[in-house]
Amino acid sequence: MPTHFQQPTSRTNLPINAARLWADVMSLAEITDPARPYTRRSFTALFLEGRAWLTQRFVEAGLSTRIDAAGNLIGRIEGRHPTLGVIAIGSHCDTVPAGGRFDGIAGVAAGLEIIRALRETNTRLNHTIEIIDFLAEEPSEYGLSCVGSRGMTGALEGKMLDLTEPGGEKLCDALRRVGGDPDRLAQARRNDIRAFLELHIEQGIVLESRLLDVGIVTSIVGIRRIEIVFQGEADHAGTTPMELRHDALVAASNTVVSVRRAAEQLAAEEGYFVATVGILTVDPSASNIVPGQCRLVIDARTTEPTLTRRFVEIIEQESAEHAAAARVTRASFTTLSDSKPVACDAHLRSALRRGASDLGLADTDLPSGAGHDAAFMSRICPSAMVFVPCRGGKSHAPEEWADREAIAAGTAVVYQAVKALDQSLARSA
Amino acid sequence: MPTHFQQPTSRTNLPINAARLWADVMSLAEITDPARPYTRRSFTALFLEGRAWLTQRFVEAGLSTRIDAAGNLIGRIEGRHPTLGVIAIGSHCDTVPAGGRFDGIAGVAAGLEIIRALRETNTRLNHTIEIIDFLAEEPSEYGLSCVGSRGMTGALEGKMLDLTEPGGEKLCDALRRVGGDPDRLAQARRNDIRAFLELHIEQGIVLESRLLDVGIVTSIVGIRRIEIVFQGEADHAGTTPMELRHDALVAASNTVVSVRRAAEQLAAEEGYFVATVGILTVDPSASNIVPGQCRLVIDARTTEPTLTRRFVEIIEQESAEHAAAARVTRASFTTLSDSKPVACDAHLRSALRRGASDLGLADTDLPSGAGHDAAFMSRICPSAMVFVPCRGGKSHAPEEWADREAIAAGTAVVYQAVKALDQSLARSA
Repeated sequence: MPTHFQQPTSRTNLPINAARLWADVMSLAEITDPARPYTRRSFTALFLEGRAWLTQRFVEAGLSTRIDAAGNLIGRIEGRHPTLGVIAIGSHCDTVPAGGRFDGIAGVAAGLEIIRALRETNTRLNHTIEIIDFLAEEPSEYGLSCVGSRGMTGALEGKMLDLTEPGGEKLCDALRRVGGDPDRLAQARRNDIRAFLELHIEQGIVLESRLLDVGIVTSIVGIRRIEIVFQGEADHAGTTPMELRHDALVAASNTVVSVRRAAEQLAAEEGYFVATVGILTVDPSASNIVPGQCRLVIDARTTEPTLTRRFVEIIEQESAEHAAAARVTRASFTTLSDSKPVACDAHLRSALRRGASDLGLADTDLPSGAGHDAAFMSRICPSAMVFVPCRGGKSHAPEEWADREAIAAGTAVVYQAVKALDQSLARSA
Repeated sequence: MPTHFQQPTSRTNLPINAARLWADVMSLAEITDPARPYTRRSFTALFLEGRAWLTQRFVEAGLSTRIDAAGNLIGRIEGRHPTLGVIAIGSHCDTVPAGGRFDGIAGVAAGLEIIRALRETNTRLNHTIEIIDFLAEEPSEYGLSCVGSRGMTGALEGKMLDLTEPGGEKLCDALRRVGGDPDRLAQARRNDIRAFLELHIEQGIVLESRLLDVGIVTSIVGIRRIEIVFQGEADHAGTTPMELRHDALVAASNTVVSVRRAAEQLAAEEGYFVATVGILTVDPSASNIVPGQCRLVIDARTTEPTLTRRFVEIIEQESAEHAAAARVTRASFTTLSDSKPVACDAHLRSALRRGASDLGLADTDLPSGAGHDAAFMSRICPSAMVFVPCRGGKSHAPEEWADREAIAAGTAVVYQAVKALDQSLARSA
């Protein structure tokens, strides 16, 4: 007899097609840099290939498609009462380098499957439904995350469009390349969306360890990203005595150590706080040259803004001290982005909880340690999120994994919530 | 009246053509990555373009040319008594990224100009003369320096040929691409060279600050290069608590700090010792991913091998401690290369000193803090070096500069020494 694992709750008879949904996720995963699965970074040729594939699926599902001025791919089906506005479902299909198959992708595929399920049951909603594939949710080579959802919510500022990737291309030009229109960004800003729902893998271990089907997100962390550039002098590694060096990497390395120590201290004292240096580049990069310039990017997250302020004060002071000790200049200490923590909408959360309950699925409330497009969307409309379990909490890595049934269960919860909200929002309109 | 600067000594009536020599250096400088002057890294298309240009100049000067199994470009003119063997002059024409116009190049151009000067004065020497453009003196993407002079002296070991650049190409395949023959490396090893002379910019400030024309090198530092790889786990920067991280960059940064501290201490106690981390790479490199892997390369130099041993002991221990503290694995602690300090040949140094004296040039003895092909050549033949002043000691940077007259003076010293050695070595043969 085969070993039999206990399912946390029954997932049969879901109102959506789990196999078809899974096939979409796996097909999109195959559009990857073959040397570095799973990589489909925003603005690349592979990203555009993924979008072409997705557009085709949208069209097959009966959606009209367009790319808005902020570069978001939008599939739309008109409601019976267009004046009621839009219920939107979405996430993103770009990945980090060597990322996973589910982060973002599951949420876009969920939206698509919900449209197909509505169509197959001849359900025409009162509201217009949109499926949104937000542009560049992950930080790209331009140093900014959530480009598309910032654009849709009026949070993509002019100076951000001037951000430049190492090859020299500006974000505004990259946006134009993928079908956006940086000169008409205001057109992307929306006031007709009445609800936004996003399904996403948890990227943590709460649901898995407690054998739960779905998490209803209470709030999403705020993320501050800071770029520091140390400017020293690129000297010969053999003929420049230690006491005459201006080594940018020494200042940068001491700053990495400071970031770690400060984050550990705040986390120990205050609870949820994390900070990471994920990018550190050395220029020139040769073993026999003293590093002349170093750039690093700090990512700090919490649900409590005062912790971020304390953290930034510590790093601002210590990085200046490290620069002075290494006899280099701290040429830049720049806030690349600063998203505030946001609470998810109570009415939408309630609809999601009821959806889970109706389907006999086990749910819990939980906060999100990761940023999401939903955090920006909450600026312009009620927004909420459903998390589905992922193995070992692993994400942003090739071994990222969510079960077919887990994605299907989460999608069914969103499906139920969309149908319920279509009624309740129409009543309150 | 124009301001008049005092020249350290008269440099008129040199036996070589300063303008023609200078034109060669400037022409080769123009073969650079235009976005990042002056860059002509070994094994690249630009490097091959530079070599094609150089080969043409060799042919015009009456030299027969070939590329040996170690990838060295050799120009040769037979002597009157071929059995006496070869007097060789050489250096290298590859650069570091964003390097200068003179490091290496001046020495190759000097050899070429000496050949032309001998020819124009109808001077046929007893010895065969070779001008050698050594392959890949600077550390390349394969992590090894002095590839060509190692090959010519039996120091290019089999395992070095397996070194791989980030794109995946092995050094042996790169060597084949530039005309070498890794399967027949033994053919590159020489036993017929009786003297090797190399002109190079000082890359330090002794000559400039003392208004001297040339430095006669007493000894060349030993260089140990060590690669350390820290293997952690690439986790989500938002959902992975500080205490559960396996952050490879934290271990690497602490190691950079250890290298700096240990080097400063040894230099303060013992005199000449330098150590540098010039390369540090992070993988994956994204602001919202905890670094999963870091690689760094340490370059340590001294004229006293016991200092290197003490330094490596400290770093081996402290890097292991840093790995443990960050809960990562020190996956590699590898000696990439280890060249011993070498003394220059007394007879050759004496010939160079006499050459300077005959020309009325001011010289001094001095050690070399940089490694050079001459250090490897000293394994198979008497070798010596002449340094010429460079502005502010700057090297491996675009602002690297040596005056036209300074290069001409140094070249004239080598010219005189070659003629003298042609006599003295013939007598002692």
